[in-house]
Amino acid sequence: MGKTVLAADLGGTNLRMAVVNENGQIEHRERCSTPQANSAEAIVSAIADLAKLCSDAVGQTNIKVLGVAIPALMNLGEGKIDIAPNLPMLDGVALEAQLEKALGLAVVLENDATAAAIGEHWLGASRGFENSICVTLGTGVGGGIILNGLALRGPDGTAGEIGHICVEPDGHPCGCGSWGCVEQYASATAVVRLAEELISTCGSIIDASRPFNAKDVYDAAKNGDKAAIETFRRMGNYLGLALAGLVNTLNPEAIVIAGGMSAAWDMFIDAVRAQLKTRAFREPALRVKLFRAELADDAGILGVSSLALAMGDKRI
Amino acid sequence: MGKTVLAADLGGTNLRMAVVNENGQIEHRERCSTPQANSAEAIVSAIADLAKLCSDAVGQTNIKVLGVAIPALMNLGEGKIDIAPNLPMLDGVALEAQLEKALGLAVVLENDATAAAIGEHWLGASRGFENSICVTLGTGVGGGIILNGLALRGPDGTAGEIGHICVEPDGHPCGCGSWGCVEQYASATAVVRLAEELISTCGSIIDASRPFNAKDVYDAAKNGDKAAIETFRRMGNYLGLALAGLVNTLNPEAIVIAGGMSAAWDMFIDAVRAQLKTRAFREPALRVKLFRAELADDAGILGVSSLALAMGDKRI
Repeated sequence: MGKTVLAADLGGTNLRMAVVNENGQIEHRERCSTPQANSAEAIVSAIADLAKLCSDAVGQTNIKVLGVAIPALMNLGEGKIDIAPNLPMLDGVALEAQLEKALGLAVVLENDATAAAIGEHWLGASRGFENSICVTLGTGVGGGIILNGLALRGPDGTAGEIGHICVEPDGHPCGCGSWGCVEQYASATAVVRLAEELISTCGSIIDASRPFNAKDVYDAAKNGDKAAIETFRRMGNYLGLALAGLVNTLNPEAIVIAGGMSAAWDMFIDAVRAQLKTRAFREPALRVKLFRAELADDAGILGVSSLALAMGDKRI
Repeated sequence: MGKTVLAADLGGTNLRMAVVNENGQIEHRERCSTPQANSAEAIVSAIADLAKLCSDAVGQTNIKVLGVAIPALMNLGEGKIDIAPNLPMLDGVALEAQLEKALGLAVVLENDATAAAIGEHWLGASRGFENSICVTLGTGVGGGIILNGLALRGPDGTAGEIGHICVEPDGHPCGCGSWGCVEQYASATAVVRLAEELISTCGSIIDASRPFNAKDVYDAAKNGDKAAIETFRRMGNYLGLALAGLVNTLNPEAIVIAGGMSAAWDMFIDAVRAQLKTRAFREPALRVKLFRAELADDAGILGVSSLALAMGDKRI
């Protein structure tokens, strides 16, 4: 019987876990709401509960490793969370050791965006490419980088934070403390703000007197609404500007666009391509391929399962 | 007797060559003007002449390898120059093969900015750090990246072109075809342009009715000239903005600032530090150390000599 591991995606809202085999097939899934109490113990306990449900469901006792994808800056060497903006109860917590103690399993943590990059590299859109960037467009903008087949983490484990590349030097304030970050121009949140600005001057079929979301802007763009179309063009320009800098800096073979906003691909990708063509050097611009992510919500789980499967071997 | 190699720095104006031993000591130097004829053969011939002078001078017949640093985008796998803006006679030339045939030596080529990064990593300001960025501020802005102790080249050999990260989306046109690149705000050329703009509105002790250079702006700044001081503050802000993005993306331990403009370090480094502090994430910003380059004009020569010395071993 092949090796099987547990892999979890710990989000601010949901905790999901799966049993994954060495071919990357998901054999069983469980999920629950992420405990909102200000207690790391509640998180550990929820993960332990799902792990038991998963193990019982597949009737296996040979699961020895759990991988966990977390939206956090982490010290991977110490298995410690530095800062988790959406899971503040974990700030400073030695989560790896706490989970190992509670579950009796070896545990490997990974930043969720890096985990998604690893997952897409293993089984998704960037498989077969040794140098790739995965940019996740959701409420924020996350990123993961694979160079020469290995995830780039850096000495602090913070590498890959491409959402906080500045694209507008006097731009919109960002939650990170800087301003003008690409996260403020290419996330779902940003699309709503950009649309609000355009609607107030140009008008739109979107009723801006009540709250609307990025999906509403996308639907309006599909119906030919000029303000909505221009919103995505601007969003694509800014995303392309940031990616062109990465193409010049890293010379990647593939860029994978993931996250909820990737559903609006047809509305922004032409602007991204135009920026890459005019702003990046010819050779790396011709080289790089743009892909929509293939693994959707499973990218992070599959990414950490690959790390968990490799435990004992070298870590990618 | 230890291993000894030849190492050359082929610039648009000068061709320099040295005999370098395995400790990185330069045992002999030669130089000549770079042939300006539209002929790759003239370049090959000039390199062969210097190689003979060097070999004769040290009386050694065991030199088997030549490394050459070149300001070009190159296909390193094929040993071919793609584009050399300052040496257009080399565009598309299979220089490695031509040199090997003419000299009877094994030849290794490297981009000059990457070579400088390797040199500073081996013997200069970033020695002891496994993750570093070397940014060269001269007529243009070049860059080299070392990750996990290895030079980052990418599949096209174009990685490290950090001078063409965009820092001003509607900014000044750049020779690369894009606009608003950091090269247009942090090179010696850019400092003169920024100073001209400020002098025309604020006045200055610089006589802008005749040509002046970045050194004149530096001297004026040292004498308290407000327009000159503000020029370097703006230059440092833009450089810091680009470097903050790289700190968030790559989490380097060291950034080495090289090139002629690094002489103005005291005038711009506070602005760079301020940008890093406010724009980059806390952990990588606390981690990264800023250094002035230590090897001056020898960084490229020492960088390619390390590649030449490693020939037969793995290539860094």
